[in-house]
Amino acid sequence: MLRPALRQALDALHPLHARMAAYAFGWSDADGEPGEPGGGKGLRPALVVLSAEAVGGEAEAVLPAAVAIELVHAFSLIHDDIIDGDERRRHRETVWKAYGIGPAVLVGDGLLALAMRSVAAGPGAEPAAHHLSAALMELVRGQADDVIFEERAWTGERAVTVREYLGMAGGKTGSLLACAAALGAAAGGAPREVVDSLSDMGRHLGIALQIVDDLLGIWGDPAVTGKPALGDLRRRKKTLPVIAALASGTPAARRLAGLLTDPGGFPAGQDELELAAALVEEAGGRAYAERRARAHADGALRIAEEVSVSPAATAELRAFAAYLVDRVR
Amino acid sequence: MLRPALRQALDALHPLHARMAAYAFGWSDADGEPGEPGGGKGLRPALVVLSAEAVGGEAEAVLPAAVAIELVHAFSLIHDDIIDGDERRRHRETVWKAYGIGPAVLVGDGLLALAMRSVAAGPGAEPAAHHLSAALMELVRGQADDVIFEERAWTGERAVTVREYLGMAGGKTGSLLACAAALGAAAGGAPREVVDSLSDMGRHLGIALQIVDDLLGIWGDPAVTGKPALGDLRRRKKTLPVIAALASGTPAARRLAGLLTDPGGFPAGQDELELAAALVEEAGGRAYAERRARAHADGALRIAEEVSVSPAATAELRAFAAYLVDRVR
Repeated sequence: MLRPALRQALDALHPLHARMAAYAFGWSDADGEPGEPGGGKGLRPALVVLSAEAVGGEAEAVLPAAVAIELVHAFSLIHDDIIDGDERRRHRETVWKAYGIGPAVLVGDGLLALAMRSVAAGPGAEPAAHHLSAALMELVRGQADDVIFEERAWTGERAVTVREYLGMAGGKTGSLLACAAALGAAAGGAPREVVDSLSDMGRHLGIALQIVDDLLGIWGDPAVTGKPALGDLRRRKKTLPVIAALASGTPAARRLAGLLTDPGGFPAGQDELELAAALVEEAGGRAYAERRARAHADGALRIAEEVSVSPAATAELRAFAAYLVDRVR
Repeated sequence: MLRPALRQALDALHPLHARMAAYAFGWSDADGEPGEPGGGKGLRPALVVLSAEAVGGEAEAVLPAAVAIELVHAFSLIHDDIIDGDERRRHRETVWKAYGIGPAVLVGDGLLALAMRSVAAGPGAEPAAHHLSAALMELVRGQADDVIFEERAWTGERAVTVREYLGMAGGKTGSLLACAAALGAAAGGAPREVVDSLSDMGRHLGIALQIVDDLLGIWGDPAVTGKPALGDLRRRKKTLPVIAALASGTPAARRLAGLLTDPGGFPAGQDELELAAALVEEAGGRAYAERRARAHADGALRIAEEVSVSPAATAELRAFAAYLVDRVR
């Protein structure tokens, strides 16, 4: 249901941007030729639909919101890859790598404008535009912190805390899932307090998603993730497993801190990256992050069970949350 | 009135982005120290206010819209400078040059999100969000064409026509001035058809503004424009004076075409750039563009005189239009 609506929405873009967006969504190669089926998992639009169903609404009514959320997600990935300098995503070159930085900046802007127009034209435009713009501000703020955290210290007073990490993840990833749930619930006719509850549910799911992405960024199989192995460690990203490991007070934490702050520079090579990953695990960082992801998924489910008027939607939300956290297994 | 409201709006951004935005607006240097008064001319927010006054509305009521328009303008300049690779604006380094490409992409996104939130929270949020998102789509489309035109041929069937140029300028520059006028008129309480008329007025003003920028991009004094002399010619930009000169069928047009398509590459040096500028003028391109800018300004004024219920606002709009086109003198 989503893909035809998305394809139709893209027709409003500049032809070059429509082609670039089709590449970004994994529908075609960089020259515009239809390619192997690929692309994202469609988690965010699915959450729009499930949230509408949970409040007794119809899936069809939320299609513009689902399209808007997926467009914002695409915008955010394209700009994030420029900001982070990432060259690979989903087993292919990132958009800026395939088309250049300037065109990638601009197609991201176009997708964001299209998302705004999609909610501004739909039913309940005013609250929807408000939810979306507020989510975008949080998303940008979280992304800014994520980048700034890379320059922060690994240890000592200037180290990134778990609390700071959760604030960043709640913005960078949580805000859009919160918005997806809120738009779905609002379009499904829910009263304000139910919209707010499901927004909280979406934020929990987003934080769980980010933590699992962190785990995959260290221990994920590049053949599955489509990204380079150990890439997050190489980039000095302050991911939750590493933050938690360093804060554990264990001998492994001290060895890890010594390795990461080696005056000769980290990483010297692949061996050091693998040693760091092993020490993060030995210090309990991996297990902590897995527990924390599961706790956020459970928190989301508790809200769903309290609020949902549809047993079928509740079951689907349970499957959604389980899918998120089980990707690390 | 605008600056305090803008400053207050920026407080909602990430602190790094608030600092970068203050630099972009010319309020401080790259380290955040207050600098010489500088920054933009504030044409777009002025147009919001004048359009509201033209329909009998109050300036205060349109402050959120004026803030939003100026934020979108700032977003667009920051991203455009990345896309065009421009290193100087308003006598200083561009934002990406001062802070890096990644942070510049992200602060642009933040300013756009803030603009959206500003209109989504104000009075008449629904039509305002619709006007703004539609304008953004046109702006992005026009900017894409502007970049693509750089790669198009100077002569022959693949040359950029005056009509194509006007479509590009109407999007890249006209859309935001059209939106400024529409938001002002709508917030001033005007009925739909008056909003549409003033939107057309804004678009005419925007096209005039772009043509004048083209003229300044060739013949402007770098001490005044803050940009390198002859920069648009060097970059092979398909500006109106050059397009018109090449289409003039004059001997100067043929010499200009030969120079621009020299197999040895154009420009070989400063002499060739100056010769090209002289030939554009000799072929009548400069005079044509000046006439065309004046015609669009006149078209805008005809609408203002037809629609405005405030003689004072009409007089101010006349001064506004005169200022736009007289910058080339």
